[in-house]
Amino acid sequence: MRTGLWLVGVRGSVAVTAITGLLAVRAGLTDPAGCVTELPQFRDAGLPELDDIVVGGHDIVDTPLLKRAEELSAAGVVPATLVNAIAAELFTVEADLRPVPVRAVQAETAAAVARDLRDFRDRHRLDHVVVVNVASTEPRTAEDTVPAELGALRAAMERTTDVLAPSSLMAYAAFEAGCAFVDFTPSTGARLPALAALARLRGMPYAGHDGKTGETLVRSVLAPMFALRNLAVRSWSGTNLLGGGDGARLAEPGANAAKTASKSRVLEEALGYRPEGATRIDYVAELGDFKTAWDLITFSGFLGTGMRMEFTWHGCDSALAAPLVLDLARLTALALHRGRSGPVPELAFFFKDPVGESAASLGEQWATLVTFAHDAEILR
Amino acid sequence: MRTGLWLVGVRGSVAVTAITGLLAVRAGLTDPAGCVTELPQFRDAGLPELDDIVVGGHDIVDTPLLKRAEELSAAGVVPATLVNAIAAELFTVEADLRPVPVRAVQAETAAAVARDLRDFRDRHRLDHVVVVNVASTEPRTAEDTVPAELGALRAAMERTTDVLAPSSLMAYAAFEAGCAFVDFTPSTGARLPALAALARLRGMPYAGHDGKTGETLVRSVLAPMFALRNLAVRSWSGTNLLGGGDGARLAEPGANAAKTASKSRVLEEALGYRPEGATRIDYVAELGDFKTAWDLITFSGFLGTGMRMEFTWHGCDSALAAPLVLDLARLTALALHRGRSGPVPELAFFFKDPVGESAASLGEQWATLVTFAHDAEILR
Amino acid sequence: MRTGLWLVGVRGSVAVTAITGLLAVRAGLTDPAGCVTELPQFRDAGLPELDDIVVGGHDIVDTPLLKRAEELSAAGVVPATLVNAIAAELFTVEADLRPVPVRAVQAETAAAVARDLRDFRDRHRLDHVVVVNVASTEPRTAEDTVPAELGALRAAMERTTDVLAPSSLMAYAAFEAGCAFVDFTPSTGARLPALAALARLRGMPYAGHDGKTGETLVRSVLAPMFALRNLAVRSWSGTNLLGGGDGARLAEPGANAAKTASKSRVLEEALGYRPEGATRIDYVAELGDFKTAWDLITFSGFLGTGMRMEFTWHGCDSALAAPLVLDLARLTALALHRGRSGPVPELAFFFKDPVGESAASLGEQWATLVTFAHDAEILR
Amino acid sequence: MRTGLWLVGVRGSVAVTAITGLLAVRAGLTDPAGCVTELPQFRDAGLPELDDIVVGGHDIVDTPLLKRAEELSAAGVVPATLVNAIAAELFTVEADLRPVPVRAVQAETAAAVARDLRDFRDRHRLDHVVVVNVASTEPRTAEDTVPAELGALRAAMERTTDVLAPSSLMAYAAFEAGCAFVDFTPSTGARLPALAALARLRGMPYAGHDGKTGETLVRSVLAPMFALRNLAVRSWSGTNLLGGGDGARLAEPGANAAKTASKSRVLEEALGYRPEGATRIDYVAELGDFKTAWDLITFSGFLGTGMRMEFTWHGCDSALAAPLVLDLARLTALALHRGRSGPVPELAFFFKDPVGESAASLGEQWATLVTFAHDAEILR
Repeated sequence: MRTGLWLVGVRGSVAVTAITGLLAVRAGLTDPAGCVTELPQFRDAGLPELDDIVVGGHDIVDTPLLKRAEELSAAGVVPATLVNAIAAELFTVEADLRPVPVRAVQAETAAAVARDLRDFRDRHRLDHVVVVNVASTEPRTAEDTVPAELGALRAAMERTTDVLAPSSLMAYAAFEAGCAFVDFTPSTGARLPALAALARLRGMPYAGHDGKTGETLVRSVLAPMFALRNLAVRSWSGTNLLGGGDGARLAEPGANAAKTASKSRVLEEALGYRPEGATRIDYVAELGDFKTAWDLITFSGFLGTGMRMEFTWHGCDSALAAPLVLDLARLTALALHRGRSGPVPELAFFFKDPVGESAASLGEQWATLVTFAHDAEILR
Repeated sequence: MRTGLWLVGVRGSVAVTAITGLLAVRAGLTDPAGCVTELPQFRDAGLPELDDIVVGGHDIVDTPLLKRAEELSAAGVVPATLVNAIAAELFTVEADLRPVPVRAVQAETAAAVARDLRDFRDRHRLDHVVVVNVASTEPRTAEDTVPAELGALRAAMERTTDVLAPSSLMAYAAFEAGCAFVDFTPSTGARLPALAALARLRGMPYAGHDGKTGETLVRSVLAPMFALRNLAVRSWSGTNLLGGGDGARLAEPGANAAKTASKSRVLEEALGYRPEGATRIDYVAELGDFKTAWDLITFSGFLGTGMRMEFTWHGCDSALAAPLVLDLARLTALALHRGRSGPVPELAFFFKDPVGESAASLGEQWATLVTFAHDAEILR
Repeated sequence: MRTGLWLVGVRGSVAVTAITGLLAVRAGLTDPAGCVTELPQFRDAGLPELDDIVVGGHDIVDTPLLKRAEELSAAGVVPATLVNAIAAELFTVEADLRPVPVRAVQAETAAAVARDLRDFRDRHRLDHVVVVNVASTEPRTAEDTVPAELGALRAAMERTTDVLAPSSLMAYAAFEAGCAFVDFTPSTGARLPALAALARLRGMPYAGHDGKTGETLVRSVLAPMFALRNLAVRSWSGTNLLGGGDGARLAEPGANAAKTASKSRVLEEALGYRPEGATRIDYVAELGDFKTAWDLITFSGFLGTGMRMEFTWHGCDSALAAPLVLDLARLTALALHRGRSGPVPELAFFFKDPVGESAASLGEQWATLVTFAHDAEILR
Repeated sequence: MRTGLWLVGVRGSVAVTAITGLLAVRAGLTDPAGCVTELPQFRDAGLPELDDIVVGGHDIVDTPLLKRAEELSAAGVVPATLVNAIAAELFTVEADLRPVPVRAVQAETAAAVARDLRDFRDRHRLDHVVVVNVASTEPRTAEDTVPAELGALRAAMERTTDVLAPSSLMAYAAFEAGCAFVDFTPSTGARLPALAALARLRGMPYAGHDGKTGETLVRSVLAPMFALRNLAVRSWSGTNLLGGGDGARLAEPGANAAKTASKSRVLEEALGYRPEGATRIDYVAELGDFKTAWDLITFSGFLGTGMRMEFTWHGCDSALAAPLVLDLARLTALALHRGRSGPVPELAFFFKDPVGESAASLGEQWATLVTFAHDAEILR
């Protein structure tokens, strides 16, 4: 099953780490640590092999992939020796990268994007293409400014360049080109009635939102722990310090609001109530591609005795996110192969704010994911 | 279903907190926070009501319950107003407490213990009695000094006072008296071939070991998180600082070894390998009934990037353990009622080192527990 | 040396803890832990004895002192037994508390406040009175709206009720009544040219601002440590979670800005540069009178190697501040006795944002304080 | 002032980092971060310039310096580009390294060591040579097995190979060769009556013990903070996790005891009492050249209110120690130049367990150090 992985934001840290890692694993230079789909539970699920994945993508900047990989190596995300060893393969991928098309109205831009996607599929004779958005987080948009009907949306797109946010425009083009769409960011993406309708119309699956890589991952196991033990969480406060381009972007009020909303969701769903306390994101350039999160949880037990827990998470978001991007490409290709269309809530394991209905606890999400992978196998 | 809860170590902190809490909940003075069996999932499982539990127990000391409750109140474990409000009920329970019998040989001691248990059951016309060991942790014993055959064990018990550790002697007497046995400590308890045989012979269920109340509880959700994300845990180190009688006891090398072995087990089982790093227990009298645990976890992800997580848990062991003791009394009474005999691994949710075979992840243990509770219902 | 301590905000947590503690120490019920002036270095400095301090004060609310002390006892700040033991003495202090006067124009309000202060001094035949502001933090005021000349200020006060912020009005009245003034908050207080002129005119000393009780105290020893070791601090981020009335007030943007400015100052002064990173204050009602601060410091050493330090401080602000209020009363009375007028920068040891010129390191501030105390002795 | 720095353990991590850094600073490739003597306070103190330092040393292993520098680069301690840039200079230093002499009796070994030192001085026409011990920590030796009289010691050294621990043998040889001696480890070194006598006899200064680079550095500012605020420290517990050769060595019981004794000293001296709680060192190979220390401090303030502080220190010992080794070489050369003999307690700023009498607070130690540097200037 030859599978195309088209990355929106393909020269960003997550994408470049994913590409570098994919090439390095394929060359036998490293093992696929962090790849969930390499666990034994997925061995016979009929997923595309890592060798069968072809990568392309869009970006608004044009820094060469190799240069970006070297920057990530200088930042401690990727080993330098490895970048040197796969330099030739990076040039091959480079040939499949395209600038983000810019046209007079959004209908034309979408058509140009879809053309890039179809060309990519044809050029490599791919069975399926999965578009994954790993571009910077957009400010949360007012969804009610977008027509709810597909026809009305199309009409609006003929007139203007800003009816859809960039992430939603990419989802639109993906569906039109017969590609699945995954949103790894908290941006709007496919979460619009008109796009849901289009996905159904074209028979395309989609998933998202906002890859669960650090603080929220931990919350998705700790919050259920308190719930299952019937301990009352009195407050849960979080501080996230992060550098890099992502940090700078998330420090802007709009993107910040989109992100923190996504982060608080898991607590409320897992506990059944919203505990006191805020979740903060602050930009600290010095931290580079690493992120430090600190959470304080106060809770009370039998007879009201007050207790507390703190944790600090010091992780590299690119290194945590990149293998999940590969996982999502494989699993969404499987969904496509199987003829699934519309939201795929079975992929909630990967997201802070999953599409559709799903459990909030990581353990339950895991069980659902494993079942999904094998159902797919059965149905093929 | 009138259920007796017989506590070994009934004047210790865990037992007194459990008793105080049970009486306070029953009097409508507090809610049953921390009681797992009060969650909606257990509502129709046919468990004995909290009102139907009668408490008795053994201890080697004779400090009055009320005095012990006042001490716990001074230590911040139990609210003072609450102790005053239930003083009369504490006197009622006091009437069912007995000194640990001491006889010339263990066979006679066991017979005297069994007599106390039968008297308790008859006096209160109880349907079932569950003996729960919450006495201090014993040094780990060399199990091979105990005869593996029941007959040989009985013969040895006729000759000496030390063939069985105290926890095992209690298990022996419980089974002989037709009571279920739960070990909330890491002591040997029923974990001996001859006692397993006796439990089967008398048709009695048993469970244990070592209530999972703090650091290990957190480990049982974090370790699976790393495993499910295919992240390689490179080291996992833990430090436990605790005061109180438990702290002093656990600082002794023998008890310390028993406890830390129990604590490391969950990591190895959840990860599938044993990460580098030790788990320490140190006694700090000043911390009283509270415990502070600090864990450092280093792990690596995609392309070998090194990352780290730390957590600090500041909990009151008595307040965390006491409601679980009530849960175990109810659930084990259900097992007894249902005719289960031998180990009950379905109660692994509560333990660091569960009897029988069970999953290491808290989520899976929870699913098993809920299924168990409802199966029981069906079979009644 | 009979000394009056007049507290502005006398029914707030800090004031009530200071009063309760003073009475308890005097009654021999507790030792003066946390009182700097009880250290051996101050033994022969000629400070007023704790027995010689008489307490009075203003507040805008009228909850009885005893009730406030009971509330603090319920919150875990003050032992209940102690409040009961000094109930009678609290009633005695109650007789010296006054509502904050409200008049048509600020000149009249100031006169009424000054009258309360003079009456207090006369009633108790006090040698000196020190007014200490422990009221809630005010929003930072634009100082340039206040006339810089004393005459112009007085004229303005004849016309309006809002030329001076409440803390500055209290400083004005204190100086007019011949009292020293200490600001334990980040409010404006005496920091206005016209008030500096008035203090000189009346020969009155003053000190402040913003008692150093938690995160900033720790910063004032850690920042010099990095500086003395020539380690480059790359970022220093802080999060403060606090409940209580103070927390609610500090969560308001104006007060928040005043407080965080005061907190960052020490880093810049001790390091000689301002490291990247913000200091946050968030309100978490659940934490009550306790505060949790978390700081992350990243730094680099020889050859640029990146390293990091984190600390968590979990303190009770009232318990930390109260003894310092007593210290400041004693030390400022000494300054008054000695004839000092104007700012007293030698008290920088106690403050986040000291008046006048002073070193930023706690060690140097300590040396200055001890020298000050003994100079005073010599000059008496 | 041409100064020789002779490193015992010259191929270990601290020594190689010091050498690499010295060469890199000299080549203008990096700045001397972490070097205390580069702070403005030492500018005119007459210290030898970094350009005037010549490095040699002994080691029991013979791995080339360049290889060791590359290993440190792989471990993240030293930038790879920098190692490449100074490869030629490392070869030059290599020519001055010698194997540790091994002879039939210690008198002969000492003579051979002294010969190496004299040859080094003559070869480079050095004004002074400072021997700094940065070899692995030795098990604490029973000092009473070493003759207290110099004559008796010399007689014993004629007969055997083990009267002196290796660090003490180096100190002996250094003094005999007219070199100063600094012990950067907790080993015995010059701390023997016979060696003190020898130092006086030869007019040689010495300093030590145990460079203060991480947890103890932080303790030396935090403990005085609690003391100056009259806060009662109830418990202070520390856990040190470290990898590398140093970690493996310190995990051995003998060396561990030597190190933890050195670490607890500062608390007792700064507080005036020894708080409850232990200091642990555990070996975690995975951490490599980095060390994570976690300390929990519980303390009580006014009215006995209980509070707590935690800190985590994640540092690279080699990067922290290396610049201090250069500082000590410069400062001890100054002492030598000035004619100081015997212990130099003015260097306490650098040590966990300083020779002679000194204050425990870092601030006071700093003031003493600055004064010492300038006194020296005056006397020259």
